[in-house]
Amino acid sequence: MNCELCTATGGVVLWEDAQCRVVLADEAGYCGFCRVIWNTHVREMTDLDAADQTHCMKVVFTVERVLRKTLSPVKINLASLGNMVAHIHWHVIPRFADDPHFPLPVWGSVQRKAPERQIGTEAAMLARGIAAELKA
Amino acid sequence: MNCELCTATGGVVLWEDAQCRVVLADEAGYCGFCRVIWNTHVREMTDLDAADQTHCMKVVFTVERVLRKTLSPVKINLASLGNMVAHIHWHVIPRFADDPHFPLPVWGSVQRKAPERQIGTEAAMLARGIAAELKA
Repeated sequence: MNCELCTATGGVVLWEDAQCRVVLADEAGYCGFCRVIWNTHVREMTDLDAADQTHCMKVVFTVERVLRKTLSPVKINLASLGNMVAHIHWHVIPRFADDPHFPLPVWGSVQRKAPERQIGTEAAMLARGIAAELKA
Repeated sequence: MNCELCTATGGVVLWEDAQCRVVLADEAGYCGFCRVIWNTHVREMTDLDAADQTHCMKVVFTVERVLRKTLSPVKINLASLGNMVAHIHWHVIPRFADDPHFPLPVWGSVQRKAPERQIGTEAAMLARGIAAELKA
């Protein structure tokens, strides 16, 4: 199977367990854009059993919580689309008033130049925050 | 507060309980586009407690399951954005190869004219299917 999420991590791995991984995406203008990627090739959330659905969403909401604490975005956007890569991956996107598309979705038309902001030591803070919350 | 999801249903109500409602959205070219709207004005999923998060996602996944059974879409798209209306609402979108934006997100650039397809008796089938699954 030629699936890019089966053959590569999809970004810098911040956290992982047997079921899924959290990666920091490399999206220009989007500091802290994370993805929660299911490890096996599953197409839809309703192809997972209830326990796995719950686990997946627990990780998604943990990433949301840690992003809010660490970066104080104006809004969090959550999305599982998969029209091109039909392997469950959740976009967990901290949105800011000066990001390239706000208030449109990140898939909308560009509203302005990307801010200069870059992710630095926050990446390590996110990794530590996610690990701490999921251990608790 | 001037929130359109506090003052109106947001579409034809297919199902509701004390916490949330499922509505059929009126989006041109998108037959079966549903939204799960939390009834009270809550901004982010992590502002809900764990029981409410679980309930909300159970409803979202039920709508996904019923849409798959009823309409056989090529993919389901799930998203909670709220940049303009910061009141929890999940888009549950059945995608088809001939829909206006496929394979792009529905917020991307238009790829083609909307198909002639219209939702007819499927609306009642969706309502019955969701009620049956959530009663079980």
